[in-house]
Amino acid sequence: MTSSPPQSSGPMTDDRRAVTPVDPARGTRRGLGLDQISLDAGFWKTRQDANSAGTLRHCIDWMERLGWLANFDRVAAGTMDENRPGWQFSDSEVYKLLEALAWEYGRTRDPEIDAIFESLVDRVAAAEDDDGYLNTCFGHAGRPERYSDLSMGHELYCAGHLLQAVVARLRTKGEDRFVALGRRVADHVLREFGPDARDGVCGHPEIEVALAEFARATGETRYRDQAQLFVERRGHGTLAPIPLLSREYFQDEIPVRDTASWHGHAVRALYLAAGAVDIAVDAGDAELLGALEEQWHRTVARRTYLTGGMGSRHQDEGFGEDWELPPDRAYCETCAGVASLMVSWRLYLATGRPKYVDLMERTLFNVIATSPSPDGTAFFYANPLQQRSESSDVLPDAVNSRAEGGVRAPWFDVSCCPTNLARTLASWQSYSAAVDEANVAVVLQYAAGEYRFKLSSGLLRVQVDTEYPNASEIHLRVQDAPPGGAPLRLRVPSWAIDAQISVNGGPAAPTEPGWCDLEQSVFRGDELRLMLPVEPRLTWPDPRIDAMRGTVAVERGPLVLCIESQDVPDGIPLDAITLDTSASLKSEGDGARGRARVLDVVGPADGTPPFGRAPTGETTSADFDLIFVPYHRWAERGPSTMRVFVPVADHVSLSGEQSSTDDVKGRTDDR
Amino acid sequence: MTSSPPQSSGPMTDDRRAVTPVDPARGTRRGLGLDQISLDAGFWKTRQDANSAGTLRHCIDWMERLGWLANFDRVAAGTMDENRPGWQFSDSEVYKLLEALAWEYGRTRDPEIDAIFESLVDRVAAAEDDDGYLNTCFGHAGRPERYSDLSMGHELYCAGHLLQAVVARLRTKGEDRFVALGRRVADHVLREFGPDARDGVCGHPEIEVALAEFARATGETRYRDQAQLFVERRGHGTLAPIPLLSREYFQDEIPVRDTASWHGHAVRALYLAAGAVDIAVDAGDAELLGALEEQWHRTVARRTYLTGGMGSRHQDEGFGEDWELPPDRAYCETCAGVASLMVSWRLYLATGRPKYVDLMERTLFNVIATSPSPDGTAFFYANPLQQRSESSDVLPDAVNSRAEGGVRAPWFDVSCCPTNLARTLASWQSYSAAVDEANVAVVLQYAAGEYRFKLSSGLLRVQVDTEYPNASEIHLRVQDAPPGGAPLRLRVPSWAIDAQISVNGGPAAPTEPGWCDLEQSVFRGDELRLMLPVEPRLTWPDPRIDAMRGTVAVERGPLVLCIESQDVPDGIPLDAITLDTSASLKSEGDGARGRARVLDVVGPADGTPPFGRAPTGETTSADFDLIFVPYHRWAERGPSTMRVFVPVADHVSLSGEQSSTDDVKGRTDDR
Repeated sequence: MTSSPPQSSGPMTDDRRAVTPVDPARGTRRGLGLDQISLDAGFWKTRQDANSAGTLRHCIDWMERLGWLANFDRVAAGTMDENRPGWQFSDSEVYKLLEALAWEYGRTRDPEIDAIFESLVDRVAAAEDDDGYLNTCFGHAGRPERYSDLSMGHELYCAGHLLQAVVARLRTKGEDRFVALGRRVADHVLREFGPDARDGVCGHPEIEVALAEFARATGETRYRDQAQLFVERRGHGTLAPIPLLSREYFQDEIPVRDTASWHGHAVRALYLAAGAVDIAVDAGDAELLGALEEQWHRTVARRTYLTGGMGSRHQDEGFGEDWELPPDRAYCETCAGVASLMVSWRLYLATGRPKYVDLMERTLFNVIATSPSPDGTAFFYANPLQQRSESSDVLPDAVNSRAEGGVRAPWFDVSCCPTNLARTLASWQSYSAAVDEANVAVVLQYAAGEYRFKLSSGLLRVQVDTEYPNASEIHLRVQDAPPGGAPLRLRVPSWAIDAQISVNGGPAAPTEPGWCDLEQSVFRGDELRLMLPVEPRLTWPDPRIDAMRGTVAVERGPLVLCIESQDVPDGIPLDAITLDTSASLKSEGDGARGRARVLDVVGPADGTPPFGRAPTGETTSADFDLIFVPYHRWAERGPSTMRVFVPVADHVSLSGEQSSTDDVKGRTDDR
Repeated sequence: MTSSPPQSSGPMTDDRRAVTPVDPARGTRRGLGLDQISLDAGFWKTRQDANSAGTLRHCIDWMERLGWLANFDRVAAGTMDENRPGWQFSDSEVYKLLEALAWEYGRTRDPEIDAIFESLVDRVAAAEDDDGYLNTCFGHAGRPERYSDLSMGHELYCAGHLLQAVVARLRTKGEDRFVALGRRVADHVLREFGPDARDGVCGHPEIEVALAEFARATGETRYRDQAQLFVERRGHGTLAPIPLLSREYFQDEIPVRDTASWHGHAVRALYLAAGAVDIAVDAGDAELLGALEEQWHRTVARRTYLTGGMGSRHQDEGFGEDWELPPDRAYCETCAGVASLMVSWRLYLATGRPKYVDLMERTLFNVIATSPSPDGTAFFYANPLQQRSESSDVLPDAVNSRAEGGVRAPWFDVSCCPTNLARTLASWQSYSAAVDEANVAVVLQYAAGEYRFKLSSGLLRVQVDTEYPNASEIHLRVQDAPPGGAPLRLRVPSWAIDAQISVNGGPAAPTEPGWCDLEQSVFRGDELRLMLPVEPRLTWPDPRIDAMRGTVAVERGPLVLCIESQDVPDGIPLDAITLDTSASLKSEGDGARGRARVLDVVGPADGTPPFGRAPTGETTSADFDLIFVPYHRWAERGPSTMRVFVPVADHVSLSGEQSSTDDVKGRTDDR
């Protein structure tokens, strides 16, 4: 399908401009500013607090410890040389943290946060070259030349993250020396890569989405023109190939508008798509927007996990092919979850379709909430849906590699995820409610707190009380409304097929997934009760997903659940467990309880690969209650084996000649 | 189990020493020399001829074209500099080709092959330094220092492949300047890495197995002592970690004798294991041999594909965890197949157990035979068991990356596989028959041709006539035998559960998998008829292999079969095909014919990941004959989609509420 892009809304008054990462130049649909929702105790407040109290300082500490911050000091002092700690893109981690701090300050107005921000800007700004070039890895004595490695140098990628931080600063504090620095950096990029200059793109997209928003924030369309140029240039093979990387890694083998599904490196593909949506919207390019909607649709329908996670491959950190969704080797990089939110949010703003917000909820609860530890100082880089081994190579106070296994790590060799989480969690509010066309207030994500909608007719203030997603009931009370009332729209998630709404204590009426539009405007004192039943339910994979054939998952509201080894009787390995789908599921805390049957396994014959003349699995020896916990909480009790998709007890037609009398504990038989 | 290593057999007379890559210093079990089997037309003759006529010269042409050979000339001329084409290990490709040429000459005595060999030695030898160091990447002006990067430098790896070529030369032609060069290179390694010198190992094992055999070939045990030192040094974390590589990549995190299963980079793990077996045997180390047998057992039982392929991961080209065997992303590197043969052959020689030879047959027919094109000038690097897309990025006359997709590539950026195949196919005979303890002649692999066993009592000459593996019958005629007759043992593969043997036209007697020992000695004129029924059969995966749940494979004799898109009615995608296991399988050429049922698929709802409230697969709309072809022939008719493991028609309990009326061709419904 092809969507019409939003019509230009013309210049808007300042008080309608929101404090948000995404503020399109066309269209009238706008996200609320992050200062327009005040969270009360609950799921997202807990995580935002851990981000404030834990993650932000944790990131600074590590970047200081590793010399990534001192790189700026050394450039300023003229002492940078061959020995520079960190990857070529380590500057970007500082910038993502600056962005997080800017949103944090915009939300909290905490002067301590502002002071930290300024102290970091002191060091970053001192490293700027006279012509606006700013990078600690390239262009200095002992370092490679500027733009000498567009494929892997990440210079424009770093500049992009700087500009996103500048946008956050401009929208939360206004013009200052950091914003001025950003203008010089952006102007440098335009001089170096403009239509008459170097015909290049960056190996890692990011500058596109950054320049597009920088144009919006500054009102200067030449930055958008440059972003558009970068989007259109890509896909024509200008990037030098890198040995052992697939050609689609950089998305440089096919233009964005000709792409069928997202492919190659997942974060690259999604950052590029986010920038392309911005261009499509602001330039009124319906064809490009339609292509991007198709890409989203096809990628979500065939290349996306139940958690919302994207990226099936460790190799090249990439998307897999259609239906290639292995649970155990799911990469589902935390940063790809962040990037997916960026794309879906932009497509929601462009089209108003609820499916984009549905995927965001799925991703928020099952990727974004899964990565950080409760105190915000350790992280999952990858978010697999199955863990086969309790062992982990994670080091508790050290730089970790990509850190496989069920232990969150404090920092990574490539440590993109902590700062990406930080900026996302600091700005959670800005993705959670909107003012739609025709001035309709829309609640998109449900959390306890106060939602303040600035409508053209006045302020609509709604207090939300809920224990969602643990409980089904969401109570909304209108604290303030414009004199003539206000239209209110509530999102009913696609999984909530038995949702109900009642108004002012009236009878509960069913409401379908999608938009629940209240029949009448709401007024001060109105009370609404939305029921989104979070009873546990079975969820079946498409039969074309080979790696999940014969299994089923359990979900509860927006939460994907999983089983963990700690909840299974001693001696029964997770790979011998099957779910009896004829037994009913019951809620249990924020998880569920089902019934397991144990698979008796006869191993392969001596000296042969694990294949035989007959099916060798029977489920006869034992059964027990099987506890499902939220996937986002996995490994919080220590390393575990885990799985989201559990084999179905009766999936094997047990007509095999081989019968089993072996104990599942022993497993001494498989030789 | 722990095996007793073979007893020392004492010095042997020259005429019993075989022309073979592996000639243990202890034990009396010996492989036949490659000059002791003359192949007639058939499966392996075809491939050996393609290797002779195609692969050998193809490899020289590419290494000349890319400057890998000229690197030696430049070092000799003193003109090597910063710009050196090829990876740091490209010298090893020249050495593997020299090894292939040496075996080819040893088998054929073709003077043209010898001339090519000598012309390459001219160039290699000219690059030797005065002290025996020989490497074109390190230790020259403009190049990194010698041994400055043990983790990734591959200097000892290259030296190891040189020494394997030297062993081949010594055993096929005798002492010459190339052998003398090898002695100087080996002595250099001992000086630099001996007990009192540098305490290091190479990031890529190979020097171990090479020095062990060099000791056997030269009779100088100090080379074996050095190999033993390298084996024992590894596993203590002396190698510098490489960013983004897992710590187990190099097998340097745990000593060989403490290892449970092979892990990390598959070729590295297997080369190391091969060298460790050599050390265990020659040093009489029963504990080490037992540990290696356990590793083989556990790895084969839980980490090995039906094809014999090893290595489940593209990432780090590595082994996966137990039961991690995805068909689509199976890496099964061709070189890992070669390395697996190396290990299994050594374990057979050490123990006499038939399971090692069974795995070799599986690997030979389904990995080694799969990689090369019929003319021997294009190759699969990875050997997956499922291909989802017909598209391929393989370039027909260019250096390819790792070349995913169903097209064999002429050459690779890392082009280890072509030369590894070349040396293996050139020496196929040396893995195919043996003289066992007590002077028993053993036929291990069946191919039409003449097998000449040098027994202590005299020559046993057996003519084998067979179309195996296409046909079941293997006819053996004793052409010559020692005056008192000779004991003869035939291998009955583990899959051949209905095998029969008849002697001199007598009644067919059943014979069990394992060893078929003839009751009486054979004499000149005796005729044997061994029947290894190659009727197609179903093979089921262990239920713990998640990625294969609900599927079944078809095998025929030693051949794994597969389905390819060319054999399926137009418009039916491979991912909609299921096998009706209630219908009988019939032989069809060298493949099989079964019955398919087509899966009607209802795609995911609009805008959701591909998961639903009910199973969505039914098999109702169509059925047709399903053709299975040998896996080794896949993609010979052009790019195809392919799968070895086919979903079982009735595996889904179809109680779902969703019924389907959709056409499988259209697939416009999944949005």
